[in-house]
Amino acid sequence: MRDVRLVGRESQLENLCVVLVAPRNPLNIGAVARAMSNFGVETLRVVNPYEVAFRDARSAVGAEDLLSRAEVFGSVADAVADCVLVVGTTAAGRREPLQPVHRLAEAAGLMGAALAGGRVALLFGSEKRGLLNEDLAHCQWVLNIPTRERQPSMNLGQAAAVCLYELSRECSDAGEESAEGAHSAASCEATTATGGELERLTDILLEALDVSGYTLPDKAAVTEQNVRRLIRRVNFDHDDADLLLGMLRQILWMLRSAERS
Amino acid sequence: MRDVRLVGRESQLENLCVVLVAPRNPLNIGAVARAMSNFGVETLRVVNPYEVAFRDARSAVGAEDLLSRAEVFGSVADAVADCVLVVGTTAAGRREPLQPVHRLAEAAGLMGAALAGGRVALLFGSEKRGLLNEDLAHCQWVLNIPTRERQPSMNLGQAAAVCLYELSRECSDAGEESAEGAHSAASCEATTATGGELERLTDILLEALDVSGYTLPDKAAVTEQNVRRLIRRVNFDHDDADLLLGMLRQILWMLRSAERS
Repeated sequence: MRDVRLVGRESQLENLCVVLVAPRNPLNIGAVARAMSNFGVETLRVVNPYEVAFRDARSAVGAEDLLSRAEVFGSVADAVADCVLVVGTTAAGRREPLQPVHRLAEAAGLMGAALAGGRVALLFGSEKRGLLNEDLAHCQWVLNIPTRERQPSMNLGQAAAVCLYELSRECSDAGEESAEGAHSAASCEATTATGGELERLTDILLEALDVSGYTLPDKAAVTEQNVRRLIRRVNFDHDDADLLLGMLRQILWMLRSAERS
Repeated sequence: MRDVRLVGRESQLENLCVVLVAPRNPLNIGAVARAMSNFGVETLRVVNPYEVAFRDARSAVGAEDLLSRAEVFGSVADAVADCVLVVGTTAAGRREPLQPVHRLAEAAGLMGAALAGGRVALLFGSEKRGLLNEDLAHCQWVLNIPTRERQPSMNLGQAAAVCLYELSRECSDAGEESAEGAHSAASCEATTATGGELERLTDILLEALDVSGYTLPDKAAVTEQNVRRLIRRVNFDHDDADLLLGMLRQILWMLRSAERS
């Protein structure tokens, strides 16, 4: 066994996009880009980088291209708008996320299945603070790399490398069992709602809650987080989202007409 | 499943020692130390470092102790003298080692078995040239992280993180099946909504749709079926159902007051 390079369903990883939220250090951005390049992940998105010159990130040996194609977004919502699954990352010790948490090994299985059906986003927070609750609110669930209690927090570039390694392992494992792979691709084809659809659902429900007097003025941020989490925790497919959107539009229209009269 | 820290046979990794041969960059040495600290590997050995001041390596957040205990050796032979197994690392593209090559996933299994019996060394070469043939000559076999042909060579700190992750996974998989069971039980404890809760949700949404004019008189049965299916297809847990019920109650109340006025 001399040639152990990645083959198989490497192409599935093309549906993965890595999203760095408010990264501070160009060195780390470069390291993430290099790991992406090692494992065949092409799409890097950056939300509000601290350092605008992040494209100059050094240590991105062999990943200059990928870095120059990186897209910059003003919000997490925009960065994940076309994604059928949005996964956050968190260090075990940092804080208790409200979303379900999966260990990396099982998370890779879940993400592998979703990658067969559409774009999947993997979010990393800033080196200093990680993902904030408002970022996590866009995530269906959170993955965690099991580390030691005494030193749970990993360097950003290393955490990304470990995640991408596990995902590429998952995808090539899946590719080796071809029948199995075909089946799981088919089962994922039932179109999951995209981040954009979930965002529209969130907006219209928030508006209905506001107009109906559910949202207390001083609790608006809490309500928004609750709604955002609810909409993402639930497994809406495209048709569900569509149906619910139609319902909420009508309810909102009626609430608004009542307000005017 | 909130606590996903490493427990179980972590202690087995105490028999692992990481050997850096002729490392050049203190930043990378620091990064290796940090990954070791994340995954519970305590013994770092350095052979002929280019930079004598490697102990000052930055980016070794939480690994200062480990770094200050690192031993310096004049030869690979001395550094691995007490080891029952010596494993080299190589990038797929770099050169054809004469030793057998195992992919990381299978290598971790082999190393896990050996760790139960004594000290095991994992060697990394310099950032620039990797392990030379004279270094590899001390190795029983070589491990390789499967990467893309176009960009096979990983950053030293990232390669170390990926190897140690896989090894710690191997060791905890072996020791931790019962803990895993406990963990998935805990993760499922987030109670699924009951049939009764789903029914209340269905009723109140149907009522809101009716009052808002969404439900067409001659299509009431179809709407009811759609709502019933939607509510059940979606994976509500108890808290989701509760939250949504509260929201819909308020919306309905507002719709009803509008109707009366």
